[in-house]
Amino acid sequence: MIHSTALISPKAQLGRNVKVGPFTVIHDDVVVGDETVIDGHCEIGYPTALAQGAALIIGARSLIRSHSIFYQGSRFGDGLVTGHRVTVREKTSAGEGLQIGTLSDIQGHCEIGNFVRTHSNVHIGQKSKIHDFVWLFPYVVLTNDPHPPSNVCVGCEIQKFAVVATMSVVLPGVTVGEGALVAAHSSVSKDVLPHTVVGGSPAKFLCEASKIKLRDGSGQSAYPWTQHFTRGYPESVIKEWLEANGNQNA
Amino acid sequence: MIHSTALISPKAQLGRNVKVGPFTVIHDDVVVGDETVIDGHCEIGYPTALAQGAALIIGARSLIRSHSIFYQGSRFGDGLVTGHRVTVREKTSAGEGLQIGTLSDIQGHCEIGNFVRTHSNVHIGQKSKIHDFVWLFPYVVLTNDPHPPSNVCVGCEIQKFAVVATMSVVLPGVTVGEGALVAAHSSVSKDVLPHTVVGGSPAKFLCEASKIKLRDGSGQSAYPWTQHFTRGYPESVIKEWLEANGNQNA
Amino acid sequence: MIHSTALISPKAQLGRNVKVGPFTVIHDDVVVGDETVIDGHCEIGYPTALAQGAALIIGARSLIRSHSIFYQGSRFGDGLVTGHRVTVREKTSAGEGLQIGTLSDIQGHCEIGNFVRTHSNVHIGQKSKIHDFVWLFPYVVLTNDPHPPSNVCVGCEIQKFAVVATMSVVLPGVTVGEGALVAAHSSVSKDVLPHTVVGGSPAKFLCEASKIKLRDGSGQSAYPWTQHFTRGYPESVIKEWLEANGNQNA
Repeated sequence: MIHSTALISPKAQLGRNVKVGPFTVIHDDVVVGDETVIDGHCEIGYPTALAQGAALIIGARSLIRSHSIFYQGSRFGDGLVTGHRVTVREKTSAGEGLQIGTLSDIQGHCEIGNFVRTHSNVHIGQKSKIHDFVWLFPYVVLTNDPHPPSNVCVGCEIQKFAVVATMSVVLPGVTVGEGALVAAHSSVSKDVLPHTVVGGSPAKFLCEASKIKLRDGSGQSAYPWTQHFTRGYPESVIKEWLEANGNQNA
Repeated sequence: MIHSTALISPKAQLGRNVKVGPFTVIHDDVVVGDETVIDGHCEIGYPTALAQGAALIIGARSLIRSHSIFYQGSRFGDGLVTGHRVTVREKTSAGEGLQIGTLSDIQGHCEIGNFVRTHSNVHIGQKSKIHDFVWLFPYVVLTNDPHPPSNVCVGCEIQKFAVVATMSVVLPGVTVGEGALVAAHSSVSKDVLPHTVVGGSPAKFLCEASKIKLRDGSGQSAYPWTQHFTRGYPESVIKEWLEANGNQNA
Repeated sequence: MIHSTALISPKAQLGRNVKVGPFTVIHDDVVVGDETVIDGHCEIGYPTALAQGAALIIGARSLIRSHSIFYQGSRFGDGLVTGHRVTVREKTSAGEGLQIGTLSDIQGHCEIGNFVRTHSNVHIGQKSKIHDFVWLFPYVVLTNDPHPPSNVCVGCEIQKFAVVATMSVVLPGVTVGEGALVAAHSSVSKDVLPHTVVGGSPAKFLCEASKIKLRDGSGQSAYPWTQHFTRGYPESVIKEWLEANGNQNA
């Protein structure tokens, strides 16, 4: 289960049936849950004084793909799945079912809810706050310094079910409301109201999210996306969504 | 030729004079052509059920630079050259002479012609279709979901000799016509006519491509770029271009 | 100090107390200064004919984080610090105290001054010229080809103390003046005057840099940033800044 070329600290605590791939390094302050798979060429529990001695905790049934780096001092619920070459720094905490896309970079000191998903190459600045069921698409950046460089750090807040599309920047301290959509290639300088669509640079109100129709010939609204997209979420979560959407539509 | 620390599956089929660098892993379902070089720290033929058992096939005289990851189930013609840390997923097929820049990410299920070149950090979404001699510059993203997240996947199409410049996004289902140029930092939401230049967010028609002059004092048009740029293409290809451009200019 | 799995060429010259992590490869033409730390999974001195035999020279007291790649033929002063997975090509030369963020890519033939800092995922095109104390934030790209693809290469110039914010592109040959600020998500097509702020796509003059106030309740100007941000710079440098700012304010 542990490849012979992997270098595992005797102080690391690995659960039952954990697999570790070739050339992966696991440092001292690491706790890995049962049934988790860590691919090759990773570095897990990268030591940093900034973690103030806290361990890296990775939940059960997780999958960390190759060439990824996790610092000491962050904590992830069960069912974490990453692409390749992700970087996660210290003092971030995430709920269950987080998916982090290839090359994404979470800078630390972030609070991340349950079942959040980032696509490839997403950059999440320090002190970002991301609620349950949020989606961040490729090359999205959440910033935090209102006048760089400075010592002021004001993270963004992305609320439940909100979606930030490809190559958009969310400026420091901005809140993207529940169920809102930021269109691709936008720069968001003001708070986004729940269930609205904004776009452009600087981003402006475009329409209510419910006005966007699915391009599948159904005539159905594309938002809330939970009405038509459920791939990979647990049955219990999907059931809750169905009920909420049913009540809303009733 | 095979470094002593490389881990090569006995089921992988390596051609004559293939070189493999240190700490590289080559999995079962891999076929590599003669004279190909695979640098160190790579993972080649990364297993995935989504490949449905298909092998990864890499042509002869290819060069895969270090820290790259290729999934099982894609197929590349001869003379593939990659930068470092590229990622290529399953069920993509490419012709000969593909160049993939450092950190670029091809998401799978793409059709790529001959002599396509991407610069660094290009992201090619699933089901993209890229014709011969296309150029994609740094941080270009080809998207595919018209209302993310959804189950609708409409890839972009980039036609022959077209160029997409730095940090532009092509939105789902858009076709960029033959010989067209998308200016840097644009967001392309509508089809682009052949041999035109578009730019901005959303991208608008700027001029005919032939109006752009080379900044080398020659007074020559910069497009079609085949009139002045031939570096690294085979003699036979360059000869065809010369004839086509000659006929056009006559 | 040298991990037993690291592969170090006997021709490489490592200074006193140099540390090298697991699975790192160090090639022939490499000179590393005293007390420098090179993490695991790196490739240092990647051979290239383009370096024309020149060595890679890395100053003393440097830190190169894991999975990084440095080509043969570039030269860095003391105190270089990198994030993870940086790529640096041949014939770049940098002064002391350079910081390169995770995933950043320096394409070679660049001139970089002292105490320059790039955040994550910055792409610096060939022949860029970057002066002392410059800051480049995430996903910034410095370009160099005015009509891609071509053989014309006109690098950007970023002057002292200038700041380019997140996801901005600087177009070929553009000079960003001393102490100027390029706002996030901009595309800079014209020279930027010293001590001004530009933004948008294409970027336009927004205000004098001194008009931007710190959002810390102090009422102080955010620029020049040296008035309030000194983290990690040497005492001697900070003292010079204090004197310069004092004289300016007097």
